[in-house]
Amino acid sequence: MSKSKQKTLLGRRGLMLVMSSPSGAGKTTIARELLGRDSEIAMSVSATTRPPRPGEVAGKDYFFVSEEEYQRMVSKGEFLEHAKVFDNYYGTPREPVEKILKSGNDVLFDVDWQGTQQLRENARDDLVSIFVLPPSTEELSRRLTERAQDSEDVVRKRMAKASDEMSHYIEYDYIIVNHEIDESVEQVQSILEAERMKRERLIGLHEFVECMREPK
Amino acid sequence: MSKSKQKTLLGRRGLMLVMSSPSGAGKTTIARELLGRDSEIAMSVSATTRPPRPGEVAGKDYFFVSEEEYQRMVSKGEFLEHAKVFDNYYGTPREPVEKILKSGNDVLFDVDWQGTQQLRENARDDLVSIFVLPPSTEELSRRLTERAQDSEDVVRKRMAKASDEMSHYIEYDYIIVNHEIDESVEQVQSILEAERMKRERLIGLHEFVECMREPK
Repeated sequence: MSKSKQKTLLGRRGLMLVMSSPSGAGKTTIARELLGRDSEIAMSVSATTRPPRPGEVAGKDYFFVSEEEYQRMVSKGEFLEHAKVFDNYYGTPREPVEKILKSGNDVLFDVDWQGTQQLRENARDDLVSIFVLPPSTEELSRRLTERAQDSEDVVRKRMAKASDEMSHYIEYDYIIVNHEIDESVEQVQSILEAERMKRERLIGLHEFVECMREPK
Repeated sequence: MSKSKQKTLLGRRGLMLVMSSPSGAGKTTIARELLGRDSEIAMSVSATTRPPRPGEVAGKDYFFVSEEEYQRMVSKGEFLEHAKVFDNYYGTPREPVEKILKSGNDVLFDVDWQGTQQLRENARDDLVSIFVLPPSTEELSRRLTERAQDSEDVVRKRMAKASDEMSHYIEYDYIIVNHEIDESVEQVQSILEAERMKRERLIGLHEFVECMREPK
């Protein structure tokens, strides 16, 4: 068997990468940078019952569904995670994600600790979870209060939410302390590269090894 | 609390990195390169009952011990792994490794699948294991037969040993297919960087987070 043919024997199943953090920790910027640098990972697309906003593209920004269709999907277990936010419903359909994973590419999720818990239940070994922490108390306070027009009450609520979110760091596989965006993106890339070499994710490994164990 | 003080709260426990492979897969070259590039990892030092060879430095190349001392260490459980090779005994003393891990640095082991099994039993969560595979059947055969003076019998034994070693890839966390040394070293570095961000290895994380959850 030629080397190239042998190499094609080895594939991998994609993984689901979830990054959570309190707001103000820099997660969204890290995610945007990562998507620009790594061609093997794509952002997951949610389904929602809210109407499209100007410029939003169906199937790219969101899958726009009726509430009836949404409820049908919930009852059929077609969501990897779902939640109601204010008056609208959101959810991650399982099928498009599964298709990407099967093709050997990865999917990035931007969900909070509650979404992560649902993903963990539904995805098991496919899930890799990272919690992004701000570098210091000062930095977190600064970021949470920087919108100067906000009332004290709004700031207090935001702090309480950040505190609540942060208490869930313990449920995540990896911790990144976001001192500097570029360094943090590289850390996420290292995690991705490492996880892609995990034995359990490789496909065709048994055949690849057996083929070498019996050289002609 | 100042940012620098807060940062010092966060430390990590070192990890034990074991790389195994059939001979001829390039593992030794990868290890040498890695040690040169990464200042946070050191080669583990074995104890042995064989006499020092010219140029070998006690405590650096080996800990040279008497057979009596060796047997005492075995019976006291002072080895992380140990084995008899021909007429000599070898073992990895636990204490110096534990000291390095506590200091937040990592230790690299060059042991076969049997040594890895012992390490796994004795180290549990500290162990990260990589199996290095040759890129193809042709390449493996070439490397195993390249010493032209070897008899067919020697080559056959070497192939059988490589085949035996390779059958244990299933016990390792990560798989690296060594197409090119530089790429493989970078892959090991990614695995190290990722593993260093694992939540379970971080020390002081709880205090670090709690401190941010109650900003003044």
